[in-house]
Amino acid sequence: MTTFVLIHGSWHDGAAWEPVIGHLEDNGHQAYGPTIAGHGKDVDKNVDHAQCTRSIVDFIESHDLNDIVLLGHSFGGTIISRVVQAVPERVKRLIFWNAFVLNDGESLFDNVPPHYQGLFEQFAKESADNTVMLPFPVWREAFMNDADLETATETYARLSPEPFQPIIDKLDMTQFYELIQSGKIACSYLNGTEDTALPPGEWGWHPRMSSRLGLHRLVQMPGGHEVIFTNPTGLAEKIIEAGRD
Amino acid sequence: MTTFVLIHGSWHDGAAWEPVIGHLEDNGHQAYGPTIAGHGKDVDKNVDHAQCTRSIVDFIESHDLNDIVLLGHSFGGTIISRVVQAVPERVKRLIFWNAFVLNDGESLFDNVPPHYQGLFEQFAKESADNTVMLPFPVWREAFMNDADLETATETYARLSPEPFQPIIDKLDMTQFYELIQSGKIACSYLNGTEDTALPPGEWGWHPRMSSRLGLHRLVQMPGGHEVIFTNPTGLAEKIIEAGRD
Amino acid sequence: MTTFVLIHGSWHDGAAWEPVIGHLEDNGHQAYGPTIAGHGKDVDKNVDHAQCTRSIVDFIESHDLNDIVLLGHSFGGTIISRVVQAVPERVKRLIFWNAFVLNDGESLFDNVPPHYQGLFEQFAKESADNTVMLPFPVWREAFMNDADLETATETYARLSPEPFQPIIDKLDMTQFYELIQSGKIACSYLNGTEDTALPPGEWGWHPRMSSRLGLHRLVQMPGGHEVIFTNPTGLAEKIIEAGRD
Repeated sequence: MTTFVLIHGSWHDGAAWEPVIGHLEDNGHQAYGPTIAGHGKDVDKNVDHAQCTRSIVDFIESHDLNDIVLLGHSFGGTIISRVVQAVPERVKRLIFWNAFVLNDGESLFDNVPPHYQGLFEQFAKESADNTVMLPFPVWREAFMNDADLETATETYARLSPEPFQPIIDKLDMTQFYELIQSGKIACSYLNGTEDTALPPGEWGWHPRMSSRLGLHRLVQMPGGHEVIFTNPTGLAEKIIEAGRD
Repeated sequence: MTTFVLIHGSWHDGAAWEPVIGHLEDNGHQAYGPTIAGHGKDVDKNVDHAQCTRSIVDFIESHDLNDIVLLGHSFGGTIISRVVQAVPERVKRLIFWNAFVLNDGESLFDNVPPHYQGLFEQFAKESADNTVMLPFPVWREAFMNDADLETATETYARLSPEPFQPIIDKLDMTQFYELIQSGKIACSYLNGTEDTALPPGEWGWHPRMSSRLGLHRLVQMPGGHEVIFTNPTGLAEKIIEAGRD
Repeated sequence: MTTFVLIHGSWHDGAAWEPVIGHLEDNGHQAYGPTIAGHGKDVDKNVDHAQCTRSIVDFIESHDLNDIVLLGHSFGGTIISRVVQAVPERVKRLIFWNAFVLNDGESLFDNVPPHYQGLFEQFAKESADNTVMLPFPVWREAFMNDADLETATETYARLSPEPFQPIIDKLDMTQFYELIQSGKIACSYLNGTEDTALPPGEWGWHPRMSSRLGLHRLVQMPGGHEVIFTNPTGLAEKIIEAGRD
């Protein structure tokens, strides 16, 4: 029995994990999908990265969770990298599911291609609350390439604007790299073979992000960035494979 | 219901699409597989790229086809890129199936590795009619790697020499890039994960060609460059996935 | 009916092939899995690369095997490259299964990333008999990423220390490249899509190693470096696909 804590990405909230959690529980595991501070609908979006991290640390400590397999999706990779530095003794393995693995001192913003940087800056400036939203055509083609239009439309309606500050905050990753290079915390990278949320090649997820982990377990599955909606059962099975000892 | 127009690659003619068209029709779609001018057996091979393009534009206009999903395979990618500039109002989406996406002013020839350039020039010079043929070992190993010898042999017998001029013609792609970058025409790239007709890596199809499309939908399937023969049903299913709204 | 000779990689011996050989025989083929000199448990580890090669040449000659499809896994790629130079008339095709294809004059050591070079040198120096062993965490995460812990543990117990000298011997590959570039010997590359024994990207198996073969047949399958243990039936099927005419 494994205790999974699943951290969503930008524009999402914890409710997106429900079908995945159901499948993990059916297989005898415990799983939690907390919502990061400043995420979800009808909440204060004025948060920085430290507050985002703090909200997940608080969740883990208040539930007194231990021996955790801690998974981050996309932006969630930056959260789990910081959470493990706060509570290393509670975590046994990290899973980066098409997630950012930042070099020390970098921000997520530093790791996306220039056309995304331009879009994000423009949207943040135009917003009333320093947030960015993903245009539907990008969602439909680059994030939900494996979905039909109906699923893409329905799931787009569940998204909410993403606070910009946590995207541009530069993060201290010193202790993170000590923890994983020493072997104290094991790492897995879960890659969707059709995930084009980052464009394949020079700016792609894999092996650009995965290689930063050093020794790690690579697990792959078919599908795009949002198999959480198009194939939650398949995702849960791959999370189990990525998370086992 | 979608109207597909399917454009074959070098050495092929439109008859190769028959099983794919059958499957698309069984799924309620309309599909056409015209033969490009100068292609097929017992025809005049003395054509340039403009004549090739014109033959497909004529086909579309004479059948008065609209809201087309226009697919090009391999060399066919250079044809659909030019066709859409002639009749943009008739096309809603382009699918490049392991197809060339040329930079403005380039030829297909500019986009193949030096050893192919050398072979093509030599064969054209040695031919009586400025055509190039694919040697059987290249067909069997690099194009039909997922086939047994019998299928490779049978399908090789269906090929015909390829006019060289359309391969070396340099193409104006200005309007093509305006159409896709403005979002007026949507794009998909369909990639066979074992397609080695272009050698993987520096000279490979994906992401070298796909990345030139900017925002696009990536769809992948197992198999080599000629799944049209080894897995026409699977190909048809992926064409539907790549072509849907 | 094909005659397969299957050459294991580092830390292994020929017994690892047993389930694969059983499946090949069930499909009407002949298959042999000899053990390379200096490999396996309780043998003299004081061998160089020439002795390793000689032991396989002797096996082939003593069994008078002809029309062989000769497969090498990992380090075994360096063996089959040298064996085919000794008995080219007995071999019709080479299969490199996530195997090293050395440039002329190089050693295997020249083709692994610096962190592996450092580990190998350190282990060889610390050993009593100039051998290197693979630490269990590397085996479990990078070699057996598709296995459960029990399978990883059981199969690790079957490994034995690898002689260091054959890893650092620089090899004459002149005749090898003449044989494959002339088309006298056909080549296939079999790649596991989750094989991270070499880290994906700059130092990866494919297309770095496969591209050195020039014209070859690419076959891929899911799984890591040790599908010989996690999926021997699937491996046998892909060996048949890679090895057929």
